[in-house]
Amino acid sequence: MSHPSDWETVCARRKRAQYESIPPGWIIPALPENQLNVMDVPRQSGLLDDLEMEITETVDVQIILDKLRLAKWSSVQVTTAFYKRAIIAQQLTNCLTEIFVDRALERARELDEHLARTGKVVGPLHGLPISLKDQFTMKGLETIMGYAKWIGRYAESDCVLVEILYECGAVPFVRTNVPQTLMWGETMNHVFGRTLNPYNIAFTPGGSSGGEGALIAMKGSCLGVGTDIGGSLRIPSAFCGLYTLRPSYARLPYAGAKNALEGQESISSVLGPMSNSLSGIKIFTKAILDAEPWLKDPVVLRKGWSESEYQLAHHGNGGQLCFAIMWDNGVVKPHPPLHRAMEITKKALEAAGHKVIKWEPHRHLEIYKNAETIFAADGGHDYRQQCEGAEPLIQTMSPSTDSHANALDEPLVKGLVGEPYHRTAYELWELHAEKRELRKSHLDYWRATVDQTGTGRPIDAIISPAVAYTAVPHGLNTDSFYTTLCNALDYTCSVFPVTFVDPELDDPHPPHRFYNHEDEHIYKLYNSELFPGCPVALQLIGGTQEEEAVIRMTEIVAEALDRMH
Amino acid sequence: MSHPSDWETVCARRKRAQYESIPPGWIIPALPENQLNVMDVPRQSGLLDDLEMEITETVDVQIILDKLRLAKWSSVQVTTAFYKRAIIAQQLTNCLTEIFVDRALERARELDEHLARTGKVVGPLHGLPISLKDQFTMKGLETIMGYAKWIGRYAESDCVLVEILYECGAVPFVRTNVPQTLMWGETMNHVFGRTLNPYNIAFTPGGSSGGEGALIAMKGSCLGVGTDIGGSLRIPSAFCGLYTLRPSYARLPYAGAKNALEGQESISSVLGPMSNSLSGIKIFTKAILDAEPWLKDPVVLRKGWSESEYQLAHHGNGGQLCFAIMWDNGVVKPHPPLHRAMEITKKALEAAGHKVIKWEPHRHLEIYKNAETIFAADGGHDYRQQCEGAEPLIQTMSPSTDSHANALDEPLVKGLVGEPYHRTAYELWELHAEKRELRKSHLDYWRATVDQTGTGRPIDAIISPAVAYTAVPHGLNTDSFYTTLCNALDYTCSVFPVTFVDPELDDPHPPHRFYNHEDEHIYKLYNSELFPGCPVALQLIGGTQEEEAVIRMTEIVAEALDRMH
Repeated sequence: MSHPSDWETVCARRKRAQYESIPPGWIIPALPENQLNVMDVPRQSGLLDDLEMEITETVDVQIILDKLRLAKWSSVQVTTAFYKRAIIAQQLTNCLTEIFVDRALERARELDEHLARTGKVVGPLHGLPISLKDQFTMKGLETIMGYAKWIGRYAESDCVLVEILYECGAVPFVRTNVPQTLMWGETMNHVFGRTLNPYNIAFTPGGSSGGEGALIAMKGSCLGVGTDIGGSLRIPSAFCGLYTLRPSYARLPYAGAKNALEGQESISSVLGPMSNSLSGIKIFTKAILDAEPWLKDPVVLRKGWSESEYQLAHHGNGGQLCFAIMWDNGVVKPHPPLHRAMEITKKALEAAGHKVIKWEPHRHLEIYKNAETIFAADGGHDYRQQCEGAEPLIQTMSPSTDSHANALDEPLVKGLVGEPYHRTAYELWELHAEKRELRKSHLDYWRATVDQTGTGRPIDAIISPAVAYTAVPHGLNTDSFYTTLCNALDYTCSVFPVTFVDPELDDPHPPHRFYNHEDEHIYKLYNSELFPGCPVALQLIGGTQEEEAVIRMTEIVAEALDRMH
Repeated sequence: MSHPSDWETVCARRKRAQYESIPPGWIIPALPENQLNVMDVPRQSGLLDDLEMEITETVDVQIILDKLRLAKWSSVQVTTAFYKRAIIAQQLTNCLTEIFVDRALERARELDEHLARTGKVVGPLHGLPISLKDQFTMKGLETIMGYAKWIGRYAESDCVLVEILYECGAVPFVRTNVPQTLMWGETMNHVFGRTLNPYNIAFTPGGSSGGEGALIAMKGSCLGVGTDIGGSLRIPSAFCGLYTLRPSYARLPYAGAKNALEGQESISSVLGPMSNSLSGIKIFTKAILDAEPWLKDPVVLRKGWSESEYQLAHHGNGGQLCFAIMWDNGVVKPHPPLHRAMEITKKALEAAGHKVIKWEPHRHLEIYKNAETIFAADGGHDYRQQCEGAEPLIQTMSPSTDSHANALDEPLVKGLVGEPYHRTAYELWELHAEKRELRKSHLDYWRATVDQTGTGRPIDAIISPAVAYTAVPHGLNTDSFYTTLCNALDYTCSVFPVTFVDPELDDPHPPHRFYNHEDEHIYKLYNSELFPGCPVALQLIGGTQEEEAVIRMTEIVAEALDRMH
């Protein structure tokens, strides 16, 4: 083996420092090499006492907040419990970046004292530990975001989200892993390494918010914050069986957070919550909007939480809804478990008295191409600049090939959108004009469904896969065809878990007439023996800036699914 | 004289067709050559009967709507009255592009019949004639927008704004002139020629919504719609003594309207109303927002008219407000009449019980440079493309020099922002990152005024000049330093008239220490003998997406000014 180069040394040193920030008593023994599913290790490890198990197994975030408010549980207890479990998750899935136990517990102690002294909570998230994707800068901590060059960049102030979380009484307690460049649907970088899926560590948790995905799936956090520009909240939520909300552009405050493609505003990255419970999604969204984030972030819409929109004022007050299922987007056909999840959801909704019709895709490939071309408008200049002189640009997420040898983009996408090159400002404007035409066309198409619903309204939401498959082996996630649609059109959407892959029920489908090379490749990936036990989730798509309504409609779907069990 | 070239012939033919679309009975005799102020010609012309004079002299749009609703005046009467007066204005100031008398009167007749038959109005703008800047496409009419090449481009559908105006019961009745490229603060193109200021036809009405400015000043329309990317609603409103509202990006529906720099989304052009009355501004804005424009334009914010924001819920319910006056932006010092207008406004507001403090400019020149660099990011590619093979690109608005001989941009601005060149996508992203930092910095600066107001809130609004001077001779308008600030920061703002230039009161100020070459140039332009009688207006600047509050605060200012008379 050759000597490590400088960047390898620098990264290894930072990784060691991370390991050393773990309290020694929280280290667990190594697992058998052949154990793929690690979901039960926290329970088996013995590291958590009964109360810590009870706390971390409490899925409903509202219950945790209630216990904190009533001082049944202290913030120190809750933060310690989730921290210990997060550290277990870290040892199994490598999901964390920044670890700062003392700082978090100090904050929790202050909150406990405040409550004891005043009898009042600081805010709606009082005492709650919250995990944050590595982009969300915190004063005094590094923001490395998957780049070797960023090691040692200590933030001088909190980003606006963190400011508001503090005002709300939350306890930011860990930061979570991302891929180099943020523009992958998996999670691996040279500093902190690769994050694994706890349902099968040979599989990816997805990305780019994959650290959050693995952590929350292991109940190492009950509520985390990720970001999404092409599926980065939804892919890990789908692969790890979580709820998430991808809000529309500029509804939640991004100011001060770091980002890839800084200044790219054509299709904006957004931040959103990830949680094991829908209550977590709603509580986070409402808390941030109630804090009037536009007073601190000039880009945020001046539009607070709307209770009437949550009560579906524009959707017949939630009486009978009409959903349209997109069984297939005409670009990539979903794997059998996704098809079964849609069947389950259809039956559940119909049993609950709602209507379900079929969604025929509208110009999906054109929309996808436009978005992907925009993301690559700088021809990779931004990525190269971040890596230059510090580390190689990662060319593939596959662990089985030399990770720096391949082409810039996964060949599948390149086949659809062509070779990227650095475009001019005017060429970018042309892409914007095309994007606007596509958005207008899609909106008109949606509105025209009023003729098919029988409710007097257009369809209330679309239900579709978030990804065409469930979690896949590392290096094989290439699909953002279902997610990117919503980024490009700025439709608010959620992800909700439905079931798990079951080899008894999810036989391979016979081959269809393939739409393209990508579709064929993805079809061949499926084998019911490979994926058993992986979570299967779907996406619910509402209109632009319909955060409140999308949350409520997702609750309605989840309640309908619950009643089927 | 040489033979006209092809483009001159084509433009002349189109201009003749426009003349021929005027009903022969509406032609007025030529005026004496030395008559500069034409404001009284409509009254003197004898073309309007008593009712038509009464209708067109009714400044308050609410009164006109009430009379229409109660059938005291028919829409045919109102539309005919304004049409005749618009045609007079056209002959004096050359403010119109599309003239379609029969079509408008047919629409008016249908509305009258509907009201007579059903006893109900079609919508909140029932029967009201509304003028539209040439960008707002109407099915079956050309959209020429100041480009020779666009002659003969007949629209196949209405833009979303026109769709909604029809739903609201309005009568779009004329379209109005613009400069070639839309990116001038004056109004002249090769097809329809130059628009003149009715207060002094040797002066510009401003631009780019200069056709609306001249038309509404002459009461040829009581309510018109223009657009603004750097001051194009506010400059003509200030030069012509009108009210306007520059809404924030994407609050009102632009979809389907034509534009310059199509696809430029970094600093968005917005549409807004122009009127002789504030009631016109409010009625238009509320009507469009109540129509839920986001259902037709995917870019529009899902945020309807908020009555509580109009009632200043976030500004102490309008009790005691605190305004900050920007006496000087530190880039260009305003002319004496503007200074006097600010003094008048200060006294009026204090007499009404409000507080007035001084606004110290914050990074104004940096903000201006960033915005102007963004507008020129394509190095002029878009303009050249629209003109290429059809007509020369206009290089100056000055009538005294060969209009195609000079440099691309007015040298004054070039001195500040440098030579434009075609930037890359990444360079544009860098400008966006800079813009975001500037917006955040300015917002924080605004919020920090909470320490100076004594109201417990930051200042409620800034009051400043819209332009550093009143209307100037053709070719001499170079200042967008006061207006562009709001486009760059996306602050909602209005313009309101205060007084008129008075040589007795508006002596030249002694020279100050000039900030730059532009400031010196503009200082030397002033001479109290040159400008008498020209309207003097100011700008009121509120927060982003504060349309309702800005309208209400402008009403409060206007009421305070009224009480001073």
